[in-house]
Amino acid sequence: MPLHRIYHPLSAFSTSDKQKISERITALYTDVGLPAFYVVVLFTPVESESFFVSGKPTDKFVRVVVQHLARQIPSEEGKKQFSEKYENVLAPFVKEKGYDWEVHVEEVPPDMWRENGLIPPIKFPEIEKEWARQNKPIPY
Amino acid sequence: MPLHRIYHPLSAFSTSDKQKISERITALYTDVGLPAFYVVVLFTPVESESFFVSGKPTDKFVRVVVQHLARQIPSEEGKKQFSEKYENVLAPFVKEKGYDWEVHVEEVPPDMWRENGLIPPIKFPEIEKEWARQNKPIPY
Amino acid sequence: MPLHRIYHPLSAFSTSDKQKISERITALYTDVGLPAFYVVVLFTPVESESFFVSGKPTDKFVRVVVQHLARQIPSEEGKKQFSEKYENVLAPFVKEKGYDWEVHVEEVPPDMWRENGLIPPIKFPEIEKEWARQNKPIPY
Repeated sequence: MPLHRIYHPLSAFSTSDKQKISERITALYTDVGLPAFYVVVLFTPVESESFFVSGKPTDKFVRVVVQHLARQIPSEEGKKQFSEKYENVLAPFVKEKGYDWEVHVEEVPPDMWRENGLIPPIKFPEIEKEWARQNKPIPY
Repeated sequence: MPLHRIYHPLSAFSTSDKQKISERITALYTDVGLPAFYVVVLFTPVESESFFVSGKPTDKFVRVVVQHLARQIPSEEGKKQFSEKYENVLAPFVKEKGYDWEVHVEEVPPDMWRENGLIPPIKFPEIEKEWARQNKPIPY
Repeated sequence: MPLHRIYHPLSAFSTSDKQKISERITALYTDVGLPAFYVVVLFTPVESESFFVSGKPTDKFVRVVVQHLARQIPSEEGKKQFSEKYENVLAPFVKEKGYDWEVHVEEVPPDMWRENGLIPPIKFPEIEKEWARQNKPIPY
């Protein structure tokens, strides 16, 4: 569901950093009851000669594009809170290492979203809980 | 128009698989009269140490992001049918090879969409047919 | 803010081309007063065996996905003008070199957009001007 595409300089993250970032991102969603397997994090290393900020090549910038499907956050306040939590997730690996960074989160309507070909049980909380418990999509 | 970004483990697809998948995806659109050249399919191999599901590195997951521009599918039923057809396209290369996978389709307003600098003839069915026949954008 | 993802054949752009394209893209936004650092351009080289148009591998196609956050262009006419300017930016590097190409621009709501953890001052023109002058995000 949430898809996190993280574009980063070649040397920005160690294997261990990527592991920790993805665990922390995943926890943002499992903490509110969503299945862990919904959370996909893709790290894309980008060479400085292909990564431009202000029209200049950079090896000091991290750009994160997040897409939400399972939930649309209804209130402005809720959106703000999510962004704050997300910033806390990234901070030790980005801000505290001297990178500049930018994040945005998109909310995509879930009508044409499938997990292993199944319609995710957005409208069926009990089934969603079972998917979360077993951490996999189960026909229903 | 439809842009298909397929993020996959390094060894998921052979050259021939990619060829077949993209042909089958293209047919979904040409079958309803759209020009073949509208259909762009990008395969992005992702190393397992950069591809996380459930906060764990994976080499068993395929994530597909589809964007539609030329058509917004108006009804819930139509969207469901599209998703089913799409699943059938992927199945032999993903499900039947033991991968887990996730797909979502976004509908993007076409106002700022251009093909070779031309406004695609969404509102001009006869011109669109000509683009389809010649399989290229033609000034009109 | 504006994120430009440019998928291109391996040999499409030299380092100097990428530099010039990103400078020209950046100018589209600084010309209307936006901070230069808002503009991120990512070039993604794609091998022909992973880049399909019309269901066929290609090394002659450039696909550009643009996302806008800081501004939604309100009128149809304004959107048309933006697309025209964008085409002019790309033309010397794409059209005039014999590539086919496709561009679309998405307008993403800015609610969950952050620059270095800060809410961009969309609603505070004076602060935005200061960000532009200093070309960096400044707490306010």
